[in-house]
Amino acid sequence: MNGVPRNEAPPALEIQAERFLADLEAVAAIGRLPDAAGGGRERRPFSSAHWAAREFLMDGARRAGLEVQIDPAGNVSARLPGPTADAPTLLLGSHLDTVPHGGPYDGALGVLAGLEVLRVLAESGIPRRCGVEVVDFTDEEGRFGDLFGSRALSGQLTREQAVAFLERAGAYPEDLARARERIPGGLSPEAVLQARRPPESLAGYLELHIEQGPRLERAGVSIGIVTAIFGRRSWLATFRGRRDHAGTTPMEVRSDALVAAAELIRELPQWVSEAVPQGVATCGNIQVDPGVYNVVPGRAVVWIEARAATLEELDRLEQGIRERAAKAAGAVGGQWALRSTARSEPTPMDPAVRALLHRAAARRGVPCLDLPSGAGHDAQMLARITPTGMLFVPSVEGRSHCPQEFTRPEDRVIGAQVLLDAVVEWVVEPRAA
Amino acid sequence: MNGVPRNEAPPALEIQAERFLADLEAVAAIGRLPDAAGGGRERRPFSSAHWAAREFLMDGARRAGLEVQIDPAGNVSARLPGPTADAPTLLLGSHLDTVPHGGPYDGALGVLAGLEVLRVLAESGIPRRCGVEVVDFTDEEGRFGDLFGSRALSGQLTREQAVAFLERAGAYPEDLARARERIPGGLSPEAVLQARRPPESLAGYLELHIEQGPRLERAGVSIGIVTAIFGRRSWLATFRGRRDHAGTTPMEVRSDALVAAAELIRELPQWVSEAVPQGVATCGNIQVDPGVYNVVPGRAVVWIEARAATLEELDRLEQGIRERAAKAAGAVGGQWALRSTARSEPTPMDPAVRALLHRAAARRGVPCLDLPSGAGHDAQMLARITPTGMLFVPSVEGRSHCPQEFTRPEDRVIGAQVLLDAVVEWVVEPRAA
Repeated sequence: MNGVPRNEAPPALEIQAERFLADLEAVAAIGRLPDAAGGGRERRPFSSAHWAAREFLMDGARRAGLEVQIDPAGNVSARLPGPTADAPTLLLGSHLDTVPHGGPYDGALGVLAGLEVLRVLAESGIPRRCGVEVVDFTDEEGRFGDLFGSRALSGQLTREQAVAFLERAGAYPEDLARARERIPGGLSPEAVLQARRPPESLAGYLELHIEQGPRLERAGVSIGIVTAIFGRRSWLATFRGRRDHAGTTPMEVRSDALVAAAELIRELPQWVSEAVPQGVATCGNIQVDPGVYNVVPGRAVVWIEARAATLEELDRLEQGIRERAAKAAGAVGGQWALRSTARSEPTPMDPAVRALLHRAAARRGVPCLDLPSGAGHDAQMLARITPTGMLFVPSVEGRSHCPQEFTRPEDRVIGAQVLLDAVVEWVVEPRAA
Repeated sequence: MNGVPRNEAPPALEIQAERFLADLEAVAAIGRLPDAAGGGRERRPFSSAHWAAREFLMDGARRAGLEVQIDPAGNVSARLPGPTADAPTLLLGSHLDTVPHGGPYDGALGVLAGLEVLRVLAESGIPRRCGVEVVDFTDEEGRFGDLFGSRALSGQLTREQAVAFLERAGAYPEDLARARERIPGGLSPEAVLQARRPPESLAGYLELHIEQGPRLERAGVSIGIVTAIFGRRSWLATFRGRRDHAGTTPMEVRSDALVAAAELIRELPQWVSEAVPQGVATCGNIQVDPGVYNVVPGRAVVWIEARAATLEELDRLEQGIRERAAKAAGAVGGQWALRSTARSEPTPMDPAVRALLHRAAARRGVPCLDLPSGAGHDAQMLARITPTGMLFVPSVEGRSHCPQEFTRPEDRVIGAQVLLDAVVEWVVEPRAA
């Protein structure tokens, strides 16, 4: 099978909402932190809570008769095989790890919806033209290495990145030892690189995720279809002025580096809203030297990032940041420099997969919204090697990465149902006319 | 003798410029740091370099036949006695300690000019109606306790402050042991409080200091006569917004605490220039929470201080800061709070002493400028208990607390000469008409 199929009348299967919602609540309870300790839950990769969630997934998969495996990058998956040994596999996935004090559904929603889809497919007995597999990717949140599992599986992990991941993990010897016991190949860099799947073995990739932003809720729509995952650039902007005594230096002769930095920080949001309405830019931190009450700041370093769905928009954001930094430094007679610290390109989703997702939502009569993803996802790794699409469901008040993160149960169920419908159209042979 | 005398034709004595300038260079070389280590000099209180400078002072004083003593707060002084045991003493003074990487003349100028004044007076043999004493105050720069020596001598040190000073000094056991050996009473809190001088034992206090700001240089004037030492208030301004994902939260729905802080930081300088032109306000530092690239800042804490010569101006600055903080927080839909962290009142200089200093400058034909002191000085402690005045000489480019601090030799000499002339008018009996 090549490409994304089109099938106007696939069979209608139904997810079992009660079973699926119960799974979500069970996993949300794993790694829970007391409110007094900040609340939410913490399933950092390779922690004991993380493995507990993975055991829950593997147990559910085994009970549904699925093949369970752990690959050399630690990705856990459950598989419903294809008709032949060389049939490609449609991957579903997301991640069971969380940030500290994370919310209940970030990552877990996509993994458990995938499990539910596989269960329904298995129970239906309908013949499929390819395999279907749900993957819980290792360390999506980047405790040791951003999108580590999906980077490895998609063949984009370098040996240097694997070594750096293991070095960072080495700071948590218990967690690393636990992972080495469970993961085939013991997480040696050579073994990790073997997690790569050849693109021809894959049919495509679908991911259901919470939006982590407020757009769907504000639009009153339950399904978002991702157009692209934002590219991201980050910089350190350094402003230099002149250190002076804060008591003896009149205002009009100062060259205050912090005032220049403040000018940029303050001007940026309004300008971005007007110039690149679909993009974002954030000043997340600032460090001042010498950073005391009684000295006019001689240096200020601002941490800036910008994200957008297209290269043209990212270029426009970068250009605007440079122009505003120059103007702000000039206004205090100071100097400035912008040093790039990270860069990732925008990742468009596959148009045919987007069309498939739209058809699935339309068949259920569910309104949906095309929107870009401001957050990074495993889908951006898979999109480089196989036709990829993403579904979003609404985050209440747009909150995420915090205990307050929430998605209403009806939206969780609709998300899983549309995912199932899309998978069915993809993998089930059209009936002979 | 009560009050500040007026004597239209005091005898004219001359300082020995060469001797005085050589003393300054000798002390400037003590504690010097290599350029590779940041340059300047470092004579932190009780360090070995600090005592080396004090030994230089005591040696010079002994050779001039002066009485040398160290009081229980570690203040080093040299004294030319009065005509009777109960005659009051006119104090001259400043400090030999420096900040790290300090300049050559901050503090040292006033101490060594005082030594020179005493030498010339002693050599002149002219009868005096009071004693004259030069004091090198302990820890003016506040390594362990702001204005510690002058606070103790003027009876304004509390037992709690003495204990806190000793606790901080205890972090440097070698320095503290060295000080305890040399200081009578061994720096016990009880002993330190004995450094207090009864106000009736003093005639007044005069201090020559570098300006540490650019006003004299910009006015092309060699002598500044201080009108008042600025009062100072400092605060922590806390802005609260809402932490959000920096990739997924559109610009228009954010409540960014750092943007609010930036608004205040950027608006303040222009407003202060217009509203309180003689005052200053500075944002010296800012701390952002969580302070990472990819989270919209939920909290930002700004370190603010304001200084002015009058209570009315300080109140106006505080009011303006509050109004601007409220407006900035409101603009992002956030909250704010201002917490006071320190407060000192403005200290006016004695009008009769200012008039005496003006007469001394006028007799030499030296133009002078009335100006407030933006920095704190030992004079602000002495002014509470005895008639006090301060002379400033220009700082090149207004620099201080850095290796680049400099005052031209001719200005150093004029400063010492005007100080001598003022002392002569103060302490020499008018000739019978």
